[in-house]
Amino acid sequence: MKREIYDEDHEAFRASVREFLERSVIPNVEQYAENKAIPREFWLEAGKQGFLGLEIPEEYGGAGAGDYRFNAVMAEELSKVNAALGSCWGIHADITAPYLVELGTEEQKHRWLPGVASGEILLAIGMTEPSGGSDLAALKTTAVKDGDDWVINGSKTFITNGYSADLVITAVRTSPEKKARGITLFAIPADAPGFSRGRKLDKVGQDESDTAELFFENIRLSDEHIVGELDGGFIHMMQKLPQERLGCALSNLAHAKQILDETLQYTKERQAFGVPIGTFQHSKFLLAELYTQAEVTQAYLDQCVVAHDKGELTPVDAAKAKWWSSQVQNEILDHCVQLHGGYGFMNEYRVARAWRDARVSKIWAGSNEIMKELIGRDLGL
Amino acid sequence: MKREIYDEDHEAFRASVREFLERSVIPNVEQYAENKAIPREFWLEAGKQGFLGLEIPEEYGGAGAGDYRFNAVMAEELSKVNAALGSCWGIHADITAPYLVELGTEEQKHRWLPGVASGEILLAIGMTEPSGGSDLAALKTTAVKDGDDWVINGSKTFITNGYSADLVITAVRTSPEKKARGITLFAIPADAPGFSRGRKLDKVGQDESDTAELFFENIRLSDEHIVGELDGGFIHMMQKLPQERLGCALSNLAHAKQILDETLQYTKERQAFGVPIGTFQHSKFLLAELYTQAEVTQAYLDQCVVAHDKGELTPVDAAKAKWWSSQVQNEILDHCVQLHGGYGFMNEYRVARAWRDARVSKIWAGSNEIMKELIGRDLGL
Amino acid sequence: MKREIYDEDHEAFRASVREFLERSVIPNVEQYAENKAIPREFWLEAGKQGFLGLEIPEEYGGAGAGDYRFNAVMAEELSKVNAALGSCWGIHADITAPYLVELGTEEQKHRWLPGVASGEILLAIGMTEPSGGSDLAALKTTAVKDGDDWVINGSKTFITNGYSADLVITAVRTSPEKKARGITLFAIPADAPGFSRGRKLDKVGQDESDTAELFFENIRLSDEHIVGELDGGFIHMMQKLPQERLGCALSNLAHAKQILDETLQYTKERQAFGVPIGTFQHSKFLLAELYTQAEVTQAYLDQCVVAHDKGELTPVDAAKAKWWSSQVQNEILDHCVQLHGGYGFMNEYRVARAWRDARVSKIWAGSNEIMKELIGRDLGL
Amino acid sequence: MKREIYDEDHEAFRASVREFLERSVIPNVEQYAENKAIPREFWLEAGKQGFLGLEIPEEYGGAGAGDYRFNAVMAEELSKVNAALGSCWGIHADITAPYLVELGTEEQKHRWLPGVASGEILLAIGMTEPSGGSDLAALKTTAVKDGDDWVINGSKTFITNGYSADLVITAVRTSPEKKARGITLFAIPADAPGFSRGRKLDKVGQDESDTAELFFENIRLSDEHIVGELDGGFIHMMQKLPQERLGCALSNLAHAKQILDETLQYTKERQAFGVPIGTFQHSKFLLAELYTQAEVTQAYLDQCVVAHDKGELTPVDAAKAKWWSSQVQNEILDHCVQLHGGYGFMNEYRVARAWRDARVSKIWAGSNEIMKELIGRDLGL
Repeated sequence: MKREIYDEDHEAFRASVREFLERSVIPNVEQYAENKAIPREFWLEAGKQGFLGLEIPEEYGGAGAGDYRFNAVMAEELSKVNAALGSCWGIHADITAPYLVELGTEEQKHRWLPGVASGEILLAIGMTEPSGGSDLAALKTTAVKDGDDWVINGSKTFITNGYSADLVITAVRTSPEKKARGITLFAIPADAPGFSRGRKLDKVGQDESDTAELFFENIRLSDEHIVGELDGGFIHMMQKLPQERLGCALSNLAHAKQILDETLQYTKERQAFGVPIGTFQHSKFLLAELYTQAEVTQAYLDQCVVAHDKGELTPVDAAKAKWWSSQVQNEILDHCVQLHGGYGFMNEYRVARAWRDARVSKIWAGSNEIMKELIGRDLGL
Repeated sequence: MKREIYDEDHEAFRASVREFLERSVIPNVEQYAENKAIPREFWLEAGKQGFLGLEIPEEYGGAGAGDYRFNAVMAEELSKVNAALGSCWGIHADITAPYLVELGTEEQKHRWLPGVASGEILLAIGMTEPSGGSDLAALKTTAVKDGDDWVINGSKTFITNGYSADLVITAVRTSPEKKARGITLFAIPADAPGFSRGRKLDKVGQDESDTAELFFENIRLSDEHIVGELDGGFIHMMQKLPQERLGCALSNLAHAKQILDETLQYTKERQAFGVPIGTFQHSKFLLAELYTQAEVTQAYLDQCVVAHDKGELTPVDAAKAKWWSSQVQNEILDHCVQLHGGYGFMNEYRVARAWRDARVSKIWAGSNEIMKELIGRDLGL
Repeated sequence: MKREIYDEDHEAFRASVREFLERSVIPNVEQYAENKAIPREFWLEAGKQGFLGLEIPEEYGGAGAGDYRFNAVMAEELSKVNAALGSCWGIHADITAPYLVELGTEEQKHRWLPGVASGEILLAIGMTEPSGGSDLAALKTTAVKDGDDWVINGSKTFITNGYSADLVITAVRTSPEKKARGITLFAIPADAPGFSRGRKLDKVGQDESDTAELFFENIRLSDEHIVGELDGGFIHMMQKLPQERLGCALSNLAHAKQILDETLQYTKERQAFGVPIGTFQHSKFLLAELYTQAEVTQAYLDQCVVAHDKGELTPVDAAKAKWWSSQVQNEILDHCVQLHGGYGFMNEYRVARAWRDARVSKIWAGSNEIMKELIGRDLGL
Repeated sequence: MKREIYDEDHEAFRASVREFLERSVIPNVEQYAENKAIPREFWLEAGKQGFLGLEIPEEYGGAGAGDYRFNAVMAEELSKVNAALGSCWGIHADITAPYLVELGTEEQKHRWLPGVASGEILLAIGMTEPSGGSDLAALKTTAVKDGDDWVINGSKTFITNGYSADLVITAVRTSPEKKARGITLFAIPADAPGFSRGRKLDKVGQDESDTAELFFENIRLSDEHIVGELDGGFIHMMQKLPQERLGCALSNLAHAKQILDETLQYTKERQAFGVPIGTFQHSKFLLAELYTQAEVTQAYLDQCVVAHDKGELTPVDAAKAKWWSSQVQNEILDHCVQLHGGYGFMNEYRVARAWRDARVSKIWAGSNEIMKELIGRDLGL
């Protein structure tokens, strides 16, 4: 089914992204995986190409695209290379940058956004804590006012870009008694005294991304590091959820579709019992099912993109996109592994890595269980 | 997720369909089921309202809507009442009438279409034979030229509207040696000497529809009963497939969504262990999943409707819509039965009938296995 | 996989059951379905053969087999004919009779058991009420002491054998304040003044069984109709659960395996595109999966039978057997319908009826959700 | 459900295996994973304990247990530590050693079996080739007679224990024209001139095992290296299939059950929203389902063990055990990852590794698709 949401501007942009990836990234991704890090050169060059500031107004060094479909194209093309590129870029440009753009003071925007757009200031977002995933009311990292400063203590875990981030938008409890309504967002610079990082986490997949624990020990920050309203963090995060979930969903599906295409090709070339393995009826039906699933899902995501561009995408519709796409992604990739036989278990095959990479998408950005809880509540249950 | 394909004209039309259903149909559907037939009054009144000739040009008594979305609205609203209404109307107006509109001679159109639009000539389509479902190359009903006449012998089975149809567009072998390419469509009137019907088939569901076997014994018809090209029947049928499959898909989903809504309501009202059963986390997650599945599927179908209105829907994309929607429909309804507990097994509950009604949608209109075969071929396998 | 739990005595018994079924039952089952009832002749003849009193000691007219495997054989062979025979016999002989055998007074046993064994006294069990399925604490049917009598008021629904039963073991609230611990079992004769029956329920499947609502209006019964302890009904029912669930499970699987065998045969005979449809790889793999599922499940059930014969089957292990077997049964039968194509939707085909019949097995005897709740609790959750 | 196949001898043996594992293995497994190898010390110590020669007669240094249940216990206990231990031991002792025991000449048995039992001669089996997995008729490695010697050329891949094996029982084509019936088994020593190994394969999971490609370049071996009949390799391999598949199946399930137990424990300890996460109804039902699935599967495997001990296990029933258990294993482990939330994606968690480790079990030892093909054929399709 032909997608209808992109016009020729988007396709031209897609071509430029591809050109960048083929020239500067794909030759090096193997190295990224070995280093368990995306190097700063990637960010700087992507910044130079204008790929990091799509949502940042031109006056702060961005492209001010004002059209979410450019983000969507970017997420798709990066995820086709590998899932970690999509998720690391997503955290920086699609999920975290908008907090500064939409909630930042004029001063904050001038201080940080040009570096965000250029790749000199790498962003991360700090929500999850070791003791609890999705339960914001239980947030334990605190900021206590001491004179003009806030003194921040606590830790965050599973932070994508965490090992190399320069600035971390962090959810911090400022009013202990107010549960979810007592959370404030602080922009914590990595060079603040008291900021430290744990080791890079050894993950099942997405080897290329540097995920880390972050520790905050008596970090002192002024009000000027508060992003948005004091005690308003929960509301701010809620408002960002549709875009976060949609970005994840687009990446999930683009990632799976790319590997599915490669797997289809493989099943046409690989022979067993004298015929291409894809022509066995079992494989043929399976691939037919997987392509259907992918296209049906794409239709929904595209509808979400259009709604989001009109400012009409609800957090609940985005939650549907998130859990469903991650489920589909994982199912598709599991079958793709199987269609590769023993090679599907070898890390040198893209399908093997993709399968490992994808597993986290059912867990993060609000686990699929949390998504279903939210959708259920929205149904009045 | 708000659907975007309908404008206010379609919604006004939907309101008029609903008004008709609530006034004339819903009070009587119980009777339809008991009689195992939709009465002629339904057809005549629907004809009076203009609901049977949406695709028939005005000069032949139709509405000449020229916009498939009116058909889609009609299919949806009927299927929300019950699946059999959707499928019987679909066979008459959405699947069979277009053969006459698009392939008929001027004389044929004047002879038949006004009655089709008014409900006086009820249509059926005769493809399937007792000895083989989807294998058109094995078609055994034959027409042999004898002087100026064709002499038709054979039989058809599983014919929706078969027991009451006045005119049956029938696939008949005219060139034995040419396999699929030797099939011609004949419009066979039910009053032709040699035409007879078997008993109404006793089906698992869709009690309201009269499904029957048809027998042709030396029926003599002139060339004027050939619809389209001699030996061109296979091509003609192929060209109609996108609309047939899309119509089925829209009905499948509308049917399931309606019962899902009713089930959600039920789970809010029915109590167990002191709380509404829908609030148990298992029910809540399940309903969240089912609503997601329904909306994701709707997005794809809506994309298909838009494509079809532009004449761009391929048979393969329609095949995806058909098999996927029927799978989703059956899964949703099975869970809806379970959420009703023992009442879900009682025919007086709508959910019980809907569950029985839906089962055929994975089988007919090209079984889901045939759909996957076609999609697989389209993938180059 | 060869089953190992039966020895030659069981197989001889199986042969006698089969002989009975082929002679007296199978020629008439079509009539049972049309009448929506199993006739008294069935019960009387089964009684004459000794098939109703397998668990009843010889002094009360039974066979006193003392070996659950004879019940298992009986359940299997009846279910192979159709599901309703299995469930109606199960309610009478396997589920309800043991209450009298194990809990009855000497007088009660002499009064009722000979008739139970001969088929003259048909049993039913009354637990479920219209307002609540599995929640015994909410039971509303009451017995209030009035002089020497108990006065019983209330109603029961979904009662298998309900329309023709002569004696109904009924759960009745005797101590309103004691919730589940205030329930007593009464044996209510159908000729007691104040006992009435609603119409036969119109069910999705199991047409042959007469399921009904029962109404109790000021029924007066003496203490002699109490079965077991006053206020001890809950405990008594709990103790019977392993056998009830195991009996259901054995029937579920035997039913599905029989239709699976018939379907395999069908796929070898039915041709499409010039070959038997079972030889298409999709069908072949599917049938391989279904047979595996059936045999794996059989192994577990057989292990349960052996444990039950030693008095070691726990309610929780039986709950696993019940929910799993009903899930497997329904999955197998749904695929069997699909393998029959259009014929699978026709009631004249055994597979169609089996599919309808099976649906209730996920709902009754404690819904599958209740089973999972119990298993979860047993895991310490 | 209590398992019934083991008596106290088996349980005493199990205790000794556990003692060995806790003392000598578990403290070092982390090191095994880092080295991507099980060290020779493991083999030597296991040999000393008598764990490598369970099937080897005492006269050749083994334990001559003559009871497959000791192998089963061993497979289970090793797999509970991790999957690679189970599979590497399985290849050595359970799959490959029996070729020598049952087919070896007296001379071969004296030459090799004492070392096999002591761990000094590590075994591997070489079937799969780079160009084709399950298609033995396409085997390309050849042995050509040259004087008294056979000259062997070719390569094998995905060889478990391949990097450290001392002796590889290898399937080699000796009669090119005879397809599957022209294959002979050669015992190829790793120190034979012309034998070389590729690098250790970088796998998705089972890091602890050394899997490698093997290359044979003009290896010259006498008839004394033929195991079994010339051109009889296919038959020999077929005869070993039941045990190979059963061993895999037992390992698959033991592995999954162990992690499931650990996950259950985790869900009782880990809190979210103020309660243990296992007590959420979704988790509770899910765990109930997974335990049911595990126990149902265990019942079938135990039935297979009993049959195998009587020499009655068919290759087809073993094929059912293999594919089904690997499917169940992977499903259970995927859910276990999800229940761990973000920690499930971290390699330091056992569940994460187990999930990666398990993936190959659906692929190797005859892919699940091959198993279904075989079962389907056995059904007469």
